[in-house]
Order: sequence, then C-alpha cells, then structure tokens
Amino acid sequence: MENTLTGREIQEARQRIGKYIRRTPLLDSPTLSQRLGCQIYLKAETLQRTGSFKIRGALNKTLQLSQEELDRGLIAGSAGNHAQGLAYAGRLLGAKTLIVMPADAPQLKVENTRAMGAQVELLDLPQPKRYEYIMNQVQEHGYTMVHAYDDYQIMAGQGTIGLEVLEDLPQVDTIVVPVGGGGLISGIAVAAKSVNPKVRIVGVEPALAPKGHESRRLGRQVTVTAGPTMADGIKDDFLGKKTYPLMEQYVDEMVLASEESIAQAMRLLCSENKLAVEGAGAVGLAALLDGNLKVQPEEKVCFVLSGGNWEPSRLAAIYSGADHL
Amino acid sequence: MENTLTGREIQEARQRIGKYIRRTPLLDSPTLSQRLGCQIYLKAETLQRTGSFKIRGALNKTLQLSQEELDRGLIAGSAGNHAQGLAYAGRLLGAKTLIVMPADAPQLKVENTRAMGAQVELLDLPQPKRYEYIMNQVQEHGYTMVHAYDDYQIMAGQGTIGLEVLEDLPQVDTIVVPVGGGGLISGIAVAAKSVNPKVRIVGVEPALAPKGHESRRLGRQVTVTAGPTMADGIKDDFLGKKTYPLMEQYVDEMVLASEESIAQAMRLLCSENKLAVEGAGAVGLAALLDGNLKVQPEEKVCFVLSGGNWEPSRLAAIYSGADHL
Repeated sequence: MENTLTGREIQEARQRIGKYIRRTPLLDSPTLSQRLGCQIYLKAETLQRTGSFKIRGALNKTLQLSQEELDRGLIAGSAGNHAQGLAYAGRLLGAKTLIVMPADAPQLKVENTRAMGAQVELLDLPQPKRYEYIMNQVQEHGYTMVHAYDDYQIMAGQGTIGLEVLEDLPQVDTIVVPVGGGGLISGIAVAAKSVNPKVRIVGVEPALAPKGHESRRLGRQVTVTAGPTMADGIKDDFLGKKTYPLMEQYVDEMVLASEESIAQAMRLLCSENKLAVEGAGAVGLAALLDGNLKVQPEEKVCFVLSGGNWEPSRLAAIYSGADHL
Repeated sequence: MENTLTGREIQEARQRIGKYIRRTPLLDSPTLSQRLGCQIYLKAETLQRTGSFKIRGALNKTLQLSQEELDRGLIAGSAGNHAQGLAYAGRLLGAKTLIVMPADAPQLKVENTRAMGAQVELLDLPQPKRYEYIMNQVQEHGYTMVHAYDDYQIMAGQGTIGLEVLEDLPQVDTIVVPVGGGGLISGIAVAAKSVNPKVRIVGVEPALAPKGHESRRLGRQVTVTAGPTMADGIKDDFLGKKTYPLMEQYVDEMVLASEESIAQAMRLLCSENKLAVEGAGAVGLAALLDGNLKVQPEEKVCFVLSGGNWEPSRLAAIYSGADHL
C-alpha cells in the first residue's frame, strides 16, 4: 500500500466496490441553472445505498481486510453516515460492528445503523474524547478500527464519485464538495485530476466549522471548535493527518456557507429537484447562494450532494421556512 | 393513427422523445422491502424534467403536430403536472401555451408553469365547467387542444415508462400506478404487456376519488365527486372515454389508498429513499400500507412515483407528522 493516494488506487477501488454500490445519477438542473448563474449538475449521493456516499469508502476498506481482521470486529466513530456505511459493509462481510456516535447524532442515523445490525454507543463527549474511547476499545478488545476519512483506502472509495462524474460529464469545469474530515474531497480531487488536471475542485465547509478554510488561510493545519451547524455530518474540528496534505496539493479553493443559505439550499433542492438533502449535503449550493463560490455563466459546476439522512420531521422544520430567492 | 394503443406506438414514442427526457432511475429499496413484505422498486419520475412524468406524453403529442397546429397555440386543462409538461414542450417547439388550472392548484405548479413561459388561467369552477371553458377557447381562438390523458399519443408517451421498467427489471412481477384520468396506467399497461403479458398491473386511486375503482366494481364507467384528497394530481371525477376501455382490457386490479397512508408513504419515501414525492405519487405505496394491495414476499413490485411537485412548506406539513410504522 502506497503512503499516498493516486488515480490508480481509485480505479482499483471502483472495480472492487462496483457491484455493491449504486451508480448514482448526475442530474442537470435547468431551473437552478437559470436562477443561479452557472450550469448546475447534481451528483445525487443521497440516492446511494444507506443514503450517503460513505459505503464507497467503507466497502473499499473492508473488502481488503483479512479474515482475521474481520473476525476481530469493526469499530468506528461517526456522526452517522460513516456509521451506516460501515454497518452495511460489516453486515455484507459478516463482521460484527461497533459504532461510537455523538449523543446529538440525528435519530434516523442511529436507528438505521442499528437496523443494519451494528451496535451503537452514544457518547456525550467532544470529538477527541470519543476518539480516545475508540482507541481504548481497540486496545482492550482487539477491534479493527475503520477511520471515517483519514485512511487512503477509505479516500480511494469515496474518490470513485469523481470518476463517475468525469465519465458522465467529461466537460465538467468545477466540482464542489462538502468537507468534514476531508476524505470525500481528497478522493474526488485525486480522481478528477487524474482524468483531467484542469478540473477545479472547491471544498465547502459551514462557516461554523471552518477548519479547512482556516488551515488554508493560515498555511498550517489548525483545530477549531465547531459551532452548532445544521450540517451535522461535517461538524468536525480538524482535518485528517493524511487528508490535509492531499487537500493542500489537489484542492483549489476552500469556501464557507452560512446557516441561512444551507437552509435555503435544502429548500431549493426539494422544490426544484425533489431531493431530500441533509444539511451537510447542501453546503455547496449554499456557498453559491452566499456568493462565496464564484462562477461564470457557462461554467459547468457539479455539486456533490453527499447525503440525505435526516428524519422527515427535521427536514420539515427547514422546509416550513420561507424561501425568498 | 390507429383508434387504439399498441406496443408499437409506444416504441415509436420512445424513439421520438428519447433525447428530450431523462431516463429516470429505477431504485431498489432494501429497507422498504424488509419492512413491507415484498421486493420494492421505485420508478422515480419525480426526477423527470418538470418534476413529473407528464412531459413524456406532452412531447410525444406535440412533436407530431403540424407547424400550423403549433402556430395556433396550445391549450390544456391541468391540475399542474400536465401544465408543466405541456409548457415545457411548448417552449421547446416555440408554441404559445395557455393552461387552465383549478383555483386550488399547488402554488409551485402554477409558478413553475408560468416560469416556463406558459400563460396560466386559474378557474374556481368544477372540472366539467373548466373543460367547457377550454372548448370555448378552442372554438373562439383556434387553439390546439392537448388533452392531459384521453389521447392515444399522450398515452403512448407515458407508456415509455413501462418499457424502461421492463428493460431495467425484466423479472418485474407487478407494476403499481397512480390513476387520475387513466392516461399513465393505460400507457404503462399496454407497454408492459407488449413485452411480458404476465406482468400484473395495479391501478391505485385515493379513496376520496375512486372513479376507476367504482367503475370496475359496477362494470360500467361512472362519475364520482372527488373529495379533498391530498393527492391533488389525481383528484379526478371520471376516467377518459379512451382510457377506460384500455384499462378494462389491460389493468388487472384497481385498489384504493387512504389519506392517512398517503401521508405515511410520503414520509417513508423521504426517510428511507430521500425522495420528495407529492401525494399523487405516493398512493401506490399507501395502498400497500393500507393492506389493499396484496403482495407475496418474493414478488418484485415496482411503484411508479409519478411526481414531486409540491412546495417544500406543504411537504413540511406532512413530514412533521409522526410515523409509527
């Protein structure tokens, strides 16, 4: 295994996971394009199995584990989408799976993770403490840790999205990707630039969790204290040790999205595209609404809608708001 | 033009409209399948251009009009989805389009129809009176009438959905279709049975608008007074003169869906499949929840999700309800 990520690993990941995942549609959106000043395409990973892109990485990782590693059981920390992805992979491969989630994780993510047979522990502790707890479990019980993002095999799996986008829309100019720990964007950036080095890759974070944006601004990897963003899936305090250097190399820009625009983007994706998207999945479009993502009228911009795992009642609270676009 | 509908016209329709429409995905749903007692597949016409299947028929019809017929302008009555489909076709072909809608049509459908350049008249009159008004407009101003369903070319366009389903899932056992005027189900039934005569076709209506169900029960075409169903897209009082005989010949069963189950189905499609579906599009799954649609555990059942054109605030009122499945 190389100590970095290249297009080749992502091509191999695609072969490995292809039959287990859904090839999600890339949907053009004439109405959003008309209103928002560029040619808009939506990569609907909300329609991926388990409701987010996370099974891509989880499968690419676990399909390369030895039987002995599987037999020791899998463990991961997750706000909910990696949890479901890993639970899905664990069930597929017959490995018991323990997921450690923050106490405020969305109910639907907790329920669905349990429904797929994984054990869930909810911990009312900050992210570093939850990580410590997981590492103790690994030490004590021998679990095989599957990190949500800071792992080249995980990133390679997520990167398969980039290959699909370039295949469906070879003329794509820009791919806009939500950034939590940086696994999704690292994979997509490496994949896309291995096919066409000119593709612009833009990472988007909630303004309340700007770890990547601040790291870039200051020229070094920083830790922030993420605020109460509705983009719970990417409410991270820091990037990964492996994702950060890849992002420095391959990600062209980091921009921020306001909470108000995240809500508005969710409403637009519902009314115009009939897609139920969670907060984290809508940050890209939100950054465009905020004016933080700069585009040209003829530019073909692909927004990766990373997931949709919110309970309907929680979506309702957003959808009931007015939309004065 | 034949005075009936056969698989051949639907094959031809597919050639004619293929490049203008989206080939919508057929999505399997392991979680719904596990919970609801059969193998569930969703034909997501919510993701079709204009947010419903209606552009299929509208395009198949208008692409066969003469330039003279187009120049006279197009007119139609619609609760909103045919309106958008025809507005889309009219704009594509450069024909001015007038749509007559009921005064209580969903705001999003009215807005989107106008956004596509059509003129909209809202009439606070019952369906037969609105039809009379349209015929007067045709007489006085020479408009070319494009009926929402009672037209073989329209039905042939809608039937292309059936061909796609059989191509994506050749082993499909049952296709479940919402019934308004009967155009969608007539097209799909003829298409599906032209490929595999053993496919079971089930039509579903809201219990508050049971015109097809009652017609079948009584053995003759009856008119009902549709009640205030949330399935506004199929709130019809009667079937068409042309659709009814086709339905008698090709539709195996007609079943009903309760309002409560329609709401529950909408919530499930949101939470499990991340799809925003309007009331009319959810009646099939609702009939399954009601126990009115009988299925077997191994049966592959395809639900046609006909459209998703509700404003988010209206979806919110449904999504905020509890779901005690």
